[in-house]
Amino acid sequence: MALFILDCDVQLYKTQTDFFRNAEFEYKGDANLLKKLDRNAKANNSIIEFVTSPNNPDGNLRVAVLQGASVRAVYDHAYYWPHFTAVPAPADEDIMIFTISKLTGHAGTRFGWAFIKDENVYQNMQAYIRAAELGISRKAQLRALKRMKTILQGNGTEIFNYAYHKMSDRWGKLSRIFSFSKRFSLQEIPPRFCNFFRKVRGPSPAYAWLKCEREGDTNCKSVLRAANIIGREGSLFNVENRYVRLSLLKSEDDFNLLLSRLNKLVAEEDGVKTM
Amino acid sequence: MALFILDCDVQLYKTQTDFFRNAEFEYKGDANLLKKLDRNAKANNSIIEFVTSPNNPDGNLRVAVLQGASVRAVYDHAYYWPHFTAVPAPADEDIMIFTISKLTGHAGTRFGWAFIKDENVYQNMQAYIRAAELGISRKAQLRALKRMKTILQGNGTEIFNYAYHKMSDRWGKLSRIFSFSKRFSLQEIPPRFCNFFRKVRGPSPAYAWLKCEREGDTNCKSVLRAANIIGREGSLFNVENRYVRLSLLKSEDDFNLLLSRLNKLVAEEDGVKTM
Repeated sequence: MALFILDCDVQLYKTQTDFFRNAEFEYKGDANLLKKLDRNAKANNSIIEFVTSPNNPDGNLRVAVLQGASVRAVYDHAYYWPHFTAVPAPADEDIMIFTISKLTGHAGTRFGWAFIKDENVYQNMQAYIRAAELGISRKAQLRALKRMKTILQGNGTEIFNYAYHKMSDRWGKLSRIFSFSKRFSLQEIPPRFCNFFRKVRGPSPAYAWLKCEREGDTNCKSVLRAANIIGREGSLFNVENRYVRLSLLKSEDDFNLLLSRLNKLVAEEDGVKTM
Repeated sequence: MALFILDCDVQLYKTQTDFFRNAEFEYKGDANLLKKLDRNAKANNSIIEFVTSPNNPDGNLRVAVLQGASVRAVYDHAYYWPHFTAVPAPADEDIMIFTISKLTGHAGTRFGWAFIKDENVYQNMQAYIRAAELGISRKAQLRALKRMKTILQGNGTEIFNYAYHKMSDRWGKLSRIFSFSKRFSLQEIPPRFCNFFRKVRGPSPAYAWLKCEREGDTNCKSVLRAANIIGREGSLFNVENRYVRLSLLKSEDDFNLLLSRLNKLVAEEDGVKTM
């Protein structure tokens, strides 16, 4: 097992690759575009595909789209916790990276880890850590270890039960508000069997995608901003600005404030009767 | 002021530059070699000169050897503390990087900082931190802050007095042993005026350079190893293997063990009377 500092946001892969201007690698964009390359072009290039699963921000589970001897897939499992998603099967990819960031909410510790099947890849990651940082801060490691021990207390499921029910409850409250709205629609997330909880479970995502349905509301972020609600515009995630991402990862007070402002916004729609 | 994770050992600059294979920069070796380039060759290339001052391992203070509009000097002041060296003048270079590693001995925290005069350079360093790490571990920052507060207690000189006297005492004991030896000679370090202590002070280095003087002792590291003493061979630092570097940064017990083994080794020389 190698330790590896991890950035959670998929956009950072492009930013980092461009910033470091490695002589051998460049960022080529969506892996689906590379699928169209012919077999020779693929064989002559080493390709690393980053698979963010669940994807940030839409929460969908993903699999690598490229295959071949010259392709390596790195699974970014930052959000792959029962808090946020059904876990359809035990994680078993060749290269998987994790972070404590979305597991316990301690992003500031900057601590992650990886499971690696191929020893050469493991050695390369070790070489990277030695060259870039000599090692991960001992303080960060000790704090992360302490948290891991706390998580594993009892039968090791308490935090996952707590976090799933918390996020599921938040999603329920949000869905209820938007069920009264014609102006806004909320992303649909179907129930799914979860191998961790051993049952079919409903949605509990970290982020909610909201769509402004009125023809004039092409900038949904501004519509929300006018109601004192901060979201991130779709264009940051390669979709229309008619979409906005709302973070559901916040303190209880902040989440309740978000609910009350959304409720007020929906209540102002013509003919809407809210809770 | 920008925060910047710092590696202390000058050899790491080469390792890192080679490892990351940036499309724009490559490692060119000793800055003295570049001095011979003609003016045009220098003007057409952006040059970054790393100046390790004090130098690791010989402890000498250094200044940049290259000048010109296309040259930037980064002063690595990892060892620039009164513990280890006279401080002839307040540090006032354009780009200076520091680390808590050799200040308090907490290398494992991986915490450093920089003083930067040019705002563009500062912005570039911030961009680097955002791309590479998003931020420095909060735990590491909090621990470093706590230590800084402890260092600044009272009149802020206690740790420097303590560390200087400790290192000076160690150097004295080491010098005494080798004053009896014909087989080994110790690096000479002249006394120097220190702006921090406001007096002329003797040597107190972090490392001692030892030379094996016998014609047959071309591998000084092996000579010491046979006496159960571990040093680093000169070739790691671009000098002959007749030289060995001994670290004086160790616990009191370990240092006393080092002294007793060195004493025994010198006592075994023909005709030597030791302490």
